[in-house]
Amino acid sequence: MQRNLSPWKNIKAGNIPTIELDPVIYRYISPGCRILDIGCANGKVSIPLALHGYFVTGIDINTDILRTARSSSEQKNSSHTPSFVKANASILPFPGATFDVAFMQALLGTVVSKDGRARVIREVCRVLKPQGHIYIADFGQTWRSKIYRERYINGLPVTKEEGSFLAYDEDTGEVAYTAHHFTEKELVLLLVENGFEVEYFRNDRFVTRTGNRVNGFVIVAQKV
Amino acid sequence: MQRNLSPWKNIKAGNIPTIELDPVIYRYISPGCRILDIGCANGKVSIPLALHGYFVTGIDINTDILRTARSSSEQKNSSHTPSFVKANASILPFPGATFDVAFMQALLGTVVSKDGRARVIREVCRVLKPQGHIYIADFGQTWRSKIYRERYINGLPVTKEEGSFLAYDEDTGEVAYTAHHFTEKELVLLLVENGFEVEYFRNDRFVTRTGNRVNGFVIVAQKV
Repeated sequence: MQRNLSPWKNIKAGNIPTIELDPVIYRYISPGCRILDIGCANGKVSIPLALHGYFVTGIDINTDILRTARSSSEQKNSSHTPSFVKANASILPFPGATFDVAFMQALLGTVVSKDGRARVIREVCRVLKPQGHIYIADFGQTWRSKIYRERYINGLPVTKEEGSFLAYDEDTGEVAYTAHHFTEKELVLLLVENGFEVEYFRNDRFVTRTGNRVNGFVIVAQKV
Repeated sequence: MQRNLSPWKNIKAGNIPTIELDPVIYRYISPGCRILDIGCANGKVSIPLALHGYFVTGIDINTDILRTARSSSEQKNSSHTPSFVKANASILPFPGATFDVAFMQALLGTVVSKDGRARVIREVCRVLKPQGHIYIADFGQTWRSKIYRERYINGLPVTKEEGSFLAYDEDTGEVAYTAHHFTEKELVLLLVENGFEVEYFRNDRFVTRTGNRVNGFVIVAQKV
């Protein structure tokens, strides 16, 4: 049974992952191009890019965090602001071939099934222009860490997917959300089987919301 | 059906992988300590370490390459030379608790089954002194590479193990050997299930014998 819990539905503004945008992205964007920031959270990436002349649309399913994003954006007193739209990554409210580049930072691992993730990638493919690019930064399975090894193993009977695990609410002890850490194989096949070709691939280490250092991937793939 | 073919049985001296020893090893060795270099090949690592005062034993199953190692070692005209011994990594001809540190560079991936690799790790555990260290550098599954992705997928029906693949003899077109590329999960579980605890773990990229850049791991684990 898949649990349909996302960490982003009840996350507090400010308490978001610390993955930094990889400068490789500047090979793929130029001022005037249309960027979709999927899971834009508080606008940390969308707002500065808009200020620099990119046309940015940020989407998120968390209403509170979108409010924070809009308010931060207004404080900049600039006419170059992103559009912030409440939307679900698997049903994007945009016509086909709208964007040049789409970002997803720490987003895919919050989509709780393989099928759900494939649906998101196909939607992104649809809204990208021909030869458009998708930029993904997400967490990798980190088996060397005893903490994560045990979370993957203990999570498996419930999540039914290796690399997925449960996170508990500190106050109530209830399951707060499920998340997924990827293997290289999973991410590569997810892209090549759903309309993309991998152009750039980098192994990294990221810090999670809870302060642990885990494996990470930065990938840029082209719509083919 | 497991094929029992090793790349090292018929490899030409000189034509060996280009993985360099990671300097992290110097945290774990001190002059006078006993080092076992498993799959020592032409002595590239064993010989300089012996010259620096470590007591090094190099083992390999390839007689020709051991001859090259001995002859290179003699040319140094030093009394500090390694012992080179023909031996199989899964039946080590040494008593228990003999060595402080054991090295395995590009060796584990040439052992063609999970059980075979577990046997090697348990043998290394046996010949290490209490709290001794194992140093492993080996190749990682590299799904972003179309070449390797296809080799893993095409190899699977024969090798029956994901990440294993066949290499063909250029002259005859026959299968020359099978090799395995690892996931982090495989290497970590191989160690923690067979007597070790991981102390150091690094993702790297290595160049294979055929000149391809692939993922690599450098791991140091302690006998517990």
